Amino acid sequence: MGPGPSDVSPRVLQALSRPIIGHLDPEFIRMMDEIKGLLQYAFQTENELTLPVSAPGSAGMETMFVNLLQPGDKVIVCQNGVFGGRMKENVERCGAEAIMVENTWGRPVDTDEVKRSLESNSDIKALAFVHAETSTGARSDAKALCELATEHGCLSIVDSVTGLGGIEVDVDGWGIDAIYSGSQKCLSCVPGLSPVSFSDRAAEVIHNRSHKVQSWFLDLNLVMAYWGTATKRTYHHTAPVNALYALHESLLMLQEEGLEQSWQRHEHNHNALVAGIEAMGLSFIVDQEYRLPQLNSVTIPENVNEATVRKQLLADYNLEIGAGLGSLAGKVWRIGLMGFSSNQKNVLLCLSALDDVLSRMGAAINSGKAVAAAQRYYSKA
Amino acid sequence: MGPGPSDVSPRVLQALSRPIIGHLDPEFIRMMDEIKGLLQYAFQTENELTLPVSAPGSAGMETMFVNLLQPGDKVIVCQNGVFGGRMKENVERCGAEAIMVENTWGRPVDTDEVKRSLESNSDIKALAFVHAETSTGARSDAKALCELATEHGCLSIVDSVTGLGGIEVDVDGWGIDAIYSGSQKCLSCVPGLSPVSFSDRAAEVIHNRSHKVQSWFLDLNLVMAYWGTATKRTYHHTAPVNALYALHESLLMLQEEGLEQSWQRHEHNHNALVAGIEAMGLSFIVDQEYRLPQLNSVTIPENVNEATVRKQLLADYNLEIGAGLGSLAGKVWRIGLMGFSSNQKNVLLCLSALDDVLSRMGAAINSGKAVAAAQRYYSKA
Repeated sequence: MGPGPSDVSPRVLQALSRPIIGHLDPEFIRMMDEIKGLLQYAFQTENELTLPVSAPGSAGMETMFVNLLQPGDKVIVCQNGVFGGRMKENVERCGAEAIMVENTWGRPVDTDEVKRSLESNSDIKALAFVHAETSTGARSDAKALCELATEHGCLSIVDSVTGLGGIEVDVDGWGIDAIYSGSQKCLSCVPGLSPVSFSDRAAEVIHNRSHKVQSWFLDLNLVMAYWGTATKRTYHHTAPVNALYALHESLLMLQEEGLEQSWQRHEHNHNALVAGIEAMGLSFIVDQEYRLPQLNSVTIPENVNEATVRKQLLADYNLEIGAGLGSLAGKVWRIGLMGFSSNQKNVLLCLSALDDVLSRMGAAINSGKAVAAAQRYYSKA
Repeated sequence: MGPGPSDVSPRVLQALSRPIIGHLDPEFIRMMDEIKGLLQYAFQTENELTLPVSAPGSAGMETMFVNLLQPGDKVIVCQNGVFGGRMKENVERCGAEAIMVENTWGRPVDTDEVKRSLESNSDIKALAFVHAETSTGARSDAKALCELATEHGCLSIVDSVTGLGGIEVDVDGWGIDAIYSGSQKCLSCVPGLSPVSFSDRAAEVIHNRSHKVQSWFLDLNLVMAYWGTATKRTYHHTAPVNALYALHESLLMLQEEGLEQSWQRHEHNHNALVAGIEAMGLSFIVDQEYRLPQLNSVTIPENVNEATVRKQLLADYNLEIGAGLGSLAGKVWRIGLMGFSSNQKNVLLCLSALDDVLSRMGAAINSGKAVAAAQRYYSKA
């Protein structure tokens, strides 16, 4: 129940461990086509250029910038947590310029600020922002931000590593040009893959570059010889065959449950956690309307060493919750309710374990109330 | 039995599918330390900077160049197959200059040519070459080439994707400065990881760069906050936890068998394959002394459509062998005997299946002799 990787279901683990076949085997190519279709479903898009990058989400982020940017390009980068800062690093390493719009951590990206930045800067190639900030648990208004990008004639680049599968992500409906996610958050596949999708407009930009993409491994013009629609697929790199078995299975599970139903489940278990955490006398750092149900940043009681609590939870309950990152280090715990991990059993375990550990440290505020509050929520809902 | 991924043993598949734990869990950090030690054993090195990159071998290659090169650097790149060409692409995408030493495909890198190139060019930053060319099956003299690099004061960058675990690789003994391999060849782990190792001299170069590494994801100065020796490991990217379980297990298996014993097993099964293939009237494109035992490039009988044969082998025998790549496309089959796939059963299956398919096409030269020849080799050896 940390900020990811989330628990992987036995069904996905079983798919993961199927005997390997060649990455050019016709059966494998057929599965790749299915993965593409399933990702299009998850992203709600008809984008042709939709595929899993063969590396973790950080490489998915890099795939965006190295393919879309050229030296000298200007990008507005919104930062309201750790990952906006990482975007800045990526932009600059492409020889492009990052114009920052910074927000308090734990708040969503300020669309008015972004609007002002778009109006006061010219020749902006792209607007980049984090839809679901894993470091804080804040959700930004991706739809409004993408509309702003379109109005100002620039591309939108969206991080939804923690969003996909857990909250609404509507790539075509919102007009997202480029998006990346991770396999190990609300998809509950193993870590190591990064689903990405590009609009036709973005694909055109990649196709018509004047400079080669600085990364050979992430160059989508080359990757598409393998992941594209050609009958004969050409070797680019050796695909992570077993991880793709697992992704296929986890996407099938998402389709079986239904996208909307998955979002509802995340919301539902989040509400129960909220009831319990608040009954304990703790609070959330993100305002209710911007809270990600899958990533809960919770305040730490005064005079409590947060790391000691996490160690105790791991030792006594085999339960992992996350520490704060960046400017929130030492100030919050991050409790994940992602994908397969978002269930009633986990919510009740987490609340009772946290209550017990804090009580034994003499730091509980309202001991014994948390689990009952969550149970009340579940019985009413 | 293609050019990789090789078969993965049930034991490694079982490790792969263990329940996931957090990438900062103390138990996981302990396993990371063990992986590092096991990789040091496999590479025969004491290099501190030894770790698996969280992406396939192509990303391992890119890790070398983006970390060691800066714009304007000059690198001698040897090409005697597909992968030397990929190195050139990587060097150029770093804004560096690749000075090519080209050889006939199927031959080893010509050390005399390399010597001449080193003598006639000044300010060479590195010499890059492929130790074990997966596209041809030729082994180059890594020891001699690294000595030349040292003599001329430049770094050696070595591709041993297909070498590690199958033939001798002596990083410290040969003075290799930077080397990358793959998980899915002679280690018989799942694809998606690339073990790398850097000498202290190379690590120093990375540490003292004036320009940032152009890839954030592959920047070893950042990756080391997670893979380094610090007691407190810092999050860089989410490690591919399950794939690392598998790598740990496959490296344990290599250690249990013993490095030298593994090389001998590869040699032994290769000899049996040679006996069979030659008894069939086919031949190897690589001269005996330079042949990789794990990757066998075999000529195709005249008037035979090589793709039809491969399709038939897959359909009738569930057996994959590889096609030729690049300038060898249509001219050879590539038969892999890598890691867990290098065994007597596979050698006999491959020979009998190939004999049968060719016979049915009326294209067999000495039908019925191949299996017997291999069996004779095994009974004598």
